[in-house]
Amino acid sequence: MNVIVNHRSYTLPATPIAVICLDGCADEYLSVAIARGKMPRLAAMARDGWRGMVRGALPSFTNVNNSSIVTGVSPAIHGICGNFFLDPESGEEVMMNGPQFRRCGTILTAVADAGRKVAFITAKEKLRTVLGDGVVERGGIVFSSEKVDEAKLATHGIDNAMEIIGKPRPEIYSGDASIYVLEAGAALAEQGRADFLYLSTTDFMQHKFGPEAPEILDFHARIDNAIGRLLDAGCTVALTADHGMNAKNDTSGNPKVIFVETLLREKFGDSLRVICPITDPYVVHHGALGSLVMVHLEDPSIRTEVAEYLFAREGITEVLTREEAVIKLELASDRIGDLVVLSGRDVVVGKSPEHHDLSVLTGGLRSHGGRYEEMVPLVISKPLTPELQRHAEGDPRNFDVFHFACHV
Amino acid sequence: MNVIVNHRSYTLPATPIAVICLDGCADEYLSVAIARGKMPRLAAMARDGWRGMVRGALPSFTNVNNSSIVTGVSPAIHGICGNFFLDPESGEEVMMNGPQFRRCGTILTAVADAGRKVAFITAKEKLRTVLGDGVVERGGIVFSSEKVDEAKLATHGIDNAMEIIGKPRPEIYSGDASIYVLEAGAALAEQGRADFLYLSTTDFMQHKFGPEAPEILDFHARIDNAIGRLLDAGCTVALTADHGMNAKNDTSGNPKVIFVETLLREKFGDSLRVICPITDPYVVHHGALGSLVMVHLEDPSIRTEVAEYLFAREGITEVLTREEAVIKLELASDRIGDLVVLSGRDVVVGKSPEHHDLSVLTGGLRSHGGRYEEMVPLVISKPLTPELQRHAEGDPRNFDVFHFACHV
Repeated sequence: MNVIVNHRSYTLPATPIAVICLDGCADEYLSVAIARGKMPRLAAMARDGWRGMVRGALPSFTNVNNSSIVTGVSPAIHGICGNFFLDPESGEEVMMNGPQFRRCGTILTAVADAGRKVAFITAKEKLRTVLGDGVVERGGIVFSSEKVDEAKLATHGIDNAMEIIGKPRPEIYSGDASIYVLEAGAALAEQGRADFLYLSTTDFMQHKFGPEAPEILDFHARIDNAIGRLLDAGCTVALTADHGMNAKNDTSGNPKVIFVETLLREKFGDSLRVICPITDPYVVHHGALGSLVMVHLEDPSIRTEVAEYLFAREGITEVLTREEAVIKLELASDRIGDLVVLSGRDVVVGKSPEHHDLSVLTGGLRSHGGRYEEMVPLVISKPLTPELQRHAEGDPRNFDVFHFACHV
Repeated sequence: MNVIVNHRSYTLPATPIAVICLDGCADEYLSVAIARGKMPRLAAMARDGWRGMVRGALPSFTNVNNSSIVTGVSPAIHGICGNFFLDPESGEEVMMNGPQFRRCGTILTAVADAGRKVAFITAKEKLRTVLGDGVVERGGIVFSSEKVDEAKLATHGIDNAMEIIGKPRPEIYSGDASIYVLEAGAALAEQGRADFLYLSTTDFMQHKFGPEAPEILDFHARIDNAIGRLLDAGCTVALTADHGMNAKNDTSGNPKVIFVETLLREKFGDSLRVICPITDPYVVHHGALGSLVMVHLEDPSIRTEVAEYLFAREGITEVLTREEAVIKLELASDRIGDLVVLSGRDVVVGKSPEHHDLSVLTGGLRSHGGRYEEMVPLVISKPLTPELQRHAEGDPRNFDVFHFACHV
């Protein structure tokens, strides 16, 4: 059975498929967890299948990359270039919290149309609403662990989800919220309720803990256990991430932040705005600070001067014009700023001190959004075909994960 | 015992130290080799010690990063910004094949001054000549596996090297050339002839083979065996890389090359030159094609236009002016071009078709030099101290490896 979505062709295998997007899973997390013996099932996948690095979409944010993964295309095509954008017509900051902002269909609905039992389970409710449209109408299941208690047959494709899964609703700001996603997927696969699964977790734990923290090693052990259940249920499992994660602190443990709007207004006046497209209702773990912001200028004539001023700043690694960002970062022209600004491995960019509540950050800041969180792991439970091997030897992307999963 | 080198302080432990620079060792090589059970000793190091990612120096070339590792500082300070540079005074292309091009001292001589038995063993003779100066005069040992048969007490600090190591000279274009480096280091450590070792291999195998190739899995098994000997000899072992490695081919397996000088001369005329600083006498494995070149302009007034023209080209990821490159890439102003040009994960930049012999590339091109080969692994046989842990949670560098090795 073959389906075509956004000009890409997917041949659906007879066996069940589970694609996992482990939010914020920098490759180091897997290396350390495997080294410490915490992920024996994933280690076996890497041994018997394939493990390599794939390139994510920029900005290296959750919505952007989940949108790419479920559509199989770049943000230039699907249009989700962050959680927020500045509407060029209204001048308002708009949160892209619904499917109307997405500019193309998803693999999930196309596969459901082809008769497969699709399940899309997320940790955060926002991802369900942004990417889950059309699946339930086609007989699939879509819910978030955050609001699993609200799941109903008519709206989510499932009644009594918590009973089926065998666990009550987890707290959203927890590792449990992510474990729950994989365990729910495993329950659905085990019970034959789904055979084409997309399971997308939250990076609460990764924002909080580096790879060696006992808490995250325990977290990964539980993730591995759930992966094992998916494998035992006969699934081909493909695991990737939406973005990596890096510590963003100085040697004293204080966040290294460049407040771009403040910086620019001091020099160029108030006729400019900075949008932090990482901002969303779930900011407790990162204070809305990431490694990419958009700069909007009322007066386009100062653009080159602003760009040069910003790029000269220590910690700023790239400043692209809108036109350059469309080509180099594969972004949609009307969803980005006049300038797109990226910061270094250990640096974040923000708007102004007032805009960010740093007091929510306990134990330092870990975040993402820039070039240094672009490369992520891909682990597949089966070896690559020669054709996929050639693909992997080019510039494979994290949003090729369904392609890999379908064709191994 | 404390030594200070280039304003950095190293406290020498009583136990022997072996720092390994595994040339071209992208992290994927280690992940796959460990997954396939080929590197049990390295896996144990990651389990009992530390494994993480460190950022190399740009250009992500061998000489640049080996220079950084043995000096502990960036190319802005040591001045080695490639294998070649265009001398601004003579207008000649100069190969930096001697220590006179380096602008600061090395950790190796300082540690030898402090009374330690230093050994610096390389695969390529060029590295010995560029970085090994002063060590033999201070009682240390310096030789390359390429010319181990020429090693003499007066000039290399050792007689009968091949007998001591127990093996004849290996072929330079081979995996053996690298294995030999580690085995030689192990022999010296086992026999108490050295207690502070820097062992630097060649990336011949990595240029030729991806992480899953049976040939490189076998190679890594032999590397691991030699690492085991160093550990068994009581060494604290710290392994890093000078740069990563990526395939640079299209889906048909042909190299994706942008010939920058040809491209620019068509548009801007002949008054410009492109320098490929990856060029060296050992080009069989990469055809002198890497992911960074320098552009020199006779007429500085066209610089912005040239930069914009280049950056608009698909596959070009960054174009920096000389001044920007000094700050953003930590390079020395007089050793680089008017423009520094970087290419993508699967793209290389060259001079002109005539300048590069692509026929030497059998089985496609794998290379390095750009941003996508900047991040490399660091594995240490002992756990980090709390202070090193904080350091690792910032932006640790591959040229911090001696710092890590001395202070765990």
